[in-house]
Amino acid sequence: MDEMIFDQLNELLNAGKFGTLKSELSEMNEVDIAEFFGSLEPKQQLLVFRILPKDISAEVFAYLEPDDQVNIVNSITDRELSELVDELFLDDTVDFLEEVPANVVTRVLKIADKETRQLINRFLRYPENSAGSIMTIEMVQLHDNITVAQAIESIRKTGIDKETIYTCYCIDKARHFVGTIGLSELIFNDDSTLLSDIMEEDASLISVKTLDDQEYVADIVRKYDLLSVPVTDNEDRLVGIITIDDVVDVIEEEVTEDFEKMAAMTPSDDEYLKTGVFKLAKNRILWLLILMISGTFTGMIIEGYEMLLSGFVALTASMPMLMGTGGNAGSQASTLIIRGLAVGEIEIKDYFKIVLKELRVAAICGFALALANIVRMYFFSEGTLLVYLVVSLAMFIAIVVAKLIGCSLPILAKLVKIDPALMAGPMIATLVDIVTLVIYFALAKAFLI
Amino acid sequence: MDEMIFDQLNELLNAGKFGTLKSELSEMNEVDIAEFFGSLEPKQQLLVFRILPKDISAEVFAYLEPDDQVNIVNSITDRELSELVDELFLDDTVDFLEEVPANVVTRVLKIADKETRQLINRFLRYPENSAGSIMTIEMVQLHDNITVAQAIESIRKTGIDKETIYTCYCIDKARHFVGTIGLSELIFNDDSTLLSDIMEEDASLISVKTLDDQEYVADIVRKYDLLSVPVTDNEDRLVGIITIDDVVDVIEEEVTEDFEKMAAMTPSDDEYLKTGVFKLAKNRILWLLILMISGTFTGMIIEGYEMLLSGFVALTASMPMLMGTGGNAGSQASTLIIRGLAVGEIEIKDYFKIVLKELRVAAICGFALALANIVRMYFFSEGTLLVYLVVSLAMFIAIVVAKLIGCSLPILAKLVKIDPALMAGPMIATLVDIVTLVIYFALAKAFLI
Repeated sequence: MDEMIFDQLNELLNAGKFGTLKSELSEMNEVDIAEFFGSLEPKQQLLVFRILPKDISAEVFAYLEPDDQVNIVNSITDRELSELVDELFLDDTVDFLEEVPANVVTRVLKIADKETRQLINRFLRYPENSAGSIMTIEMVQLHDNITVAQAIESIRKTGIDKETIYTCYCIDKARHFVGTIGLSELIFNDDSTLLSDIMEEDASLISVKTLDDQEYVADIVRKYDLLSVPVTDNEDRLVGIITIDDVVDVIEEEVTEDFEKMAAMTPSDDEYLKTGVFKLAKNRILWLLILMISGTFTGMIIEGYEMLLSGFVALTASMPMLMGTGGNAGSQASTLIIRGLAVGEIEIKDYFKIVLKELRVAAICGFALALANIVRMYFFSEGTLLVYLVVSLAMFIAIVVAKLIGCSLPILAKLVKIDPALMAGPMIATLVDIVTLVIYFALAKAFLI
Repeated sequence: MDEMIFDQLNELLNAGKFGTLKSELSEMNEVDIAEFFGSLEPKQQLLVFRILPKDISAEVFAYLEPDDQVNIVNSITDRELSELVDELFLDDTVDFLEEVPANVVTRVLKIADKETRQLINRFLRYPENSAGSIMTIEMVQLHDNITVAQAIESIRKTGIDKETIYTCYCIDKARHFVGTIGLSELIFNDDSTLLSDIMEEDASLISVKTLDDQEYVADIVRKYDLLSVPVTDNEDRLVGIITIDDVVDVIEEEVTEDFEKMAAMTPSDDEYLKTGVFKLAKNRILWLLILMISGTFTGMIIEGYEMLLSGFVALTASMPMLMGTGGNAGSQASTLIIRGLAVGEIEIKDYFKIVLKELRVAAICGFALALANIVRMYFFSEGTLLVYLVVSLAMFIAIVVAKLIGCSLPILAKLVKIDPALMAGPMIATLVDIVTLVIYFALAKAFLI
């Protein structure tokens, strides 16, 4: 959003021109209004919140940061809060309640009517990251034995949110989910047509269960290019839908998690700038410790070759380069495989194809780098040609082994149902370090002594 | 899709029961039919393609892999091809033409009618990854001076694809984009209402330009939770729309690119399993070489401290662990910052807040790891307590410096308009290696000699 517009709004606010401010805000997109809110002091936020028409203020509320939401809820009367909860979509209410302190949850539940309270409680009980926890119940449900005219009448009456109206979900008498029908189908068909005659059904029906993982839901929506997917309970009864905008958020979250795991951190849902220093440190220390302690192995290997190393300084001097190259080569392979597994382009059964591919890629990369290394050492390093050859040969083997480890571990992880993203750069590099040193010293011992 | 269903379909195909096969397939989702296609031999693909009703076969075609698309186009008659192009949405035709050999493109352009040919040529000229290249022209355009009744009549007549009907785009006499209106608004309003009275307009209108980058488009769609976003030319005339399912693909692509860059590879749009060995090697060699050659610096530093190292074997033995820990600590910080920048949670102006945060996180992590290291070395390493202290102190400083470099480089890259994703693990680790060794040896020299 334009900074200039914010400045104008601020001027109106400070000058007390609330009428003009209200009409300016009412013309803006709710997301932009929420952004403007974020730049205000708590007292001003409350003022602007009260200026806005109720339907807009509820939409804006849904886009606010949790801190600002709590601030507003703590400042408004029970009556205002009750109106807010009425206007909010249930899934937005639940999203909000999941992020705020217990006393705020209690207050909201107290003022909500009985039906809403029961619904909220049911939603809050769905496991985190399950389909149930991200679904909404604001959808169009139609019985499959009514006509198009009855359907359109029913939609007009319930007057449901524009975002979720475009696919209508058909249920039978027992509330089982039996078909879908687009709003446009309704419009284009004769008034007397029965829904059961025009709805999509059987093999082309796609749905998920309340307890399915949100990542699975995202895969389904992505695969079938859906705008929304219906959610059913264990008895195949329709209980909600998940819309694509929420799926986009899930994709973002899952990707962020993968990035964090791949950089050896405990994944976290919190925004970086809003996470405390201790929490950040806690997320990072465990893996740093594990990887540091595994450094004991490289240390022991090096101590075992003390005599060899003191005889050829170029051997010691090449260690970081050698391990760095091995680590990089391995994490290139593992990254491609992890990402391929995540988006479904690679499956476990492709393993042998992958190994063959990586071996050939490794041979090409290894050969090119070994050659470049001989030239590099000739100009910049002490030692004899034989030493350069040993270092280059070790590098070639290290690259081959690294690519092999890099492409194998993520698939192995998948096989034993660990997240492949854990088998990324840092983990691969640590393993490759150990293997590289063993190969390196064995070669050096064989050729140089 | 269930393997069992594929087996059943295969049986029908092999038994020549085409009638049953056709009706089974017609009930399936197009995405699943396309998956079934992928498992068939080329000759069978052609057979099944011809069995399907024209509208379904076109939809299935859009979901096929480029290789299979080329196979089919090369096997069908000009007349069949012309029917296929008629049925396909223009953006699917363009997607397909972007991936296939030139002779196929020439043939398709030859059989297409003049108008389609001009449209295709215009689309193929939009730069790769621009909004123009991913937009579709199949949308509902309405003049803002007509009534609701006229609008619904016009929509019924054009009978446009169900996925893009839900938001209608209003234009004025000069075809300038002036407002949007949901299909549900049309249904819920009186027949005589003018569109200009009920459309969303002014400050709440969101659109992108044909030459905008697709990443920007994705950011806009994500930020405003849109199902589609209108695309205008430089004169603000409406020329197309981009739907959210294509945006999801863009998000995927951009994330994959980030992953590849962060693992020191040249990003590529091709699927791993379909990329040739030489192409894969080419994408990886450049960065491996650059990072390997920068190993010259670590080598020179180590050669400079030959005497010191040969006196204390524990110093040499701790090098890999020290550099590994530094690299890991740095890439943790850089990953969080790169991801934060990518999703818009972090901006350049947050830099000082970030540095302060990282310094404090580094102090906590560094202290914990240094302590753990003393214990570890006491049990597993040769050398004196003083050596352990030097190693631990070096580690503490290395972690602080690594976090500082890790959080600074991505922001610096953003500032000078380089992709922050390049400042990830491998690059950070290489830099941190050099700095760590310099600090390490300086400390060792000061305390041990």
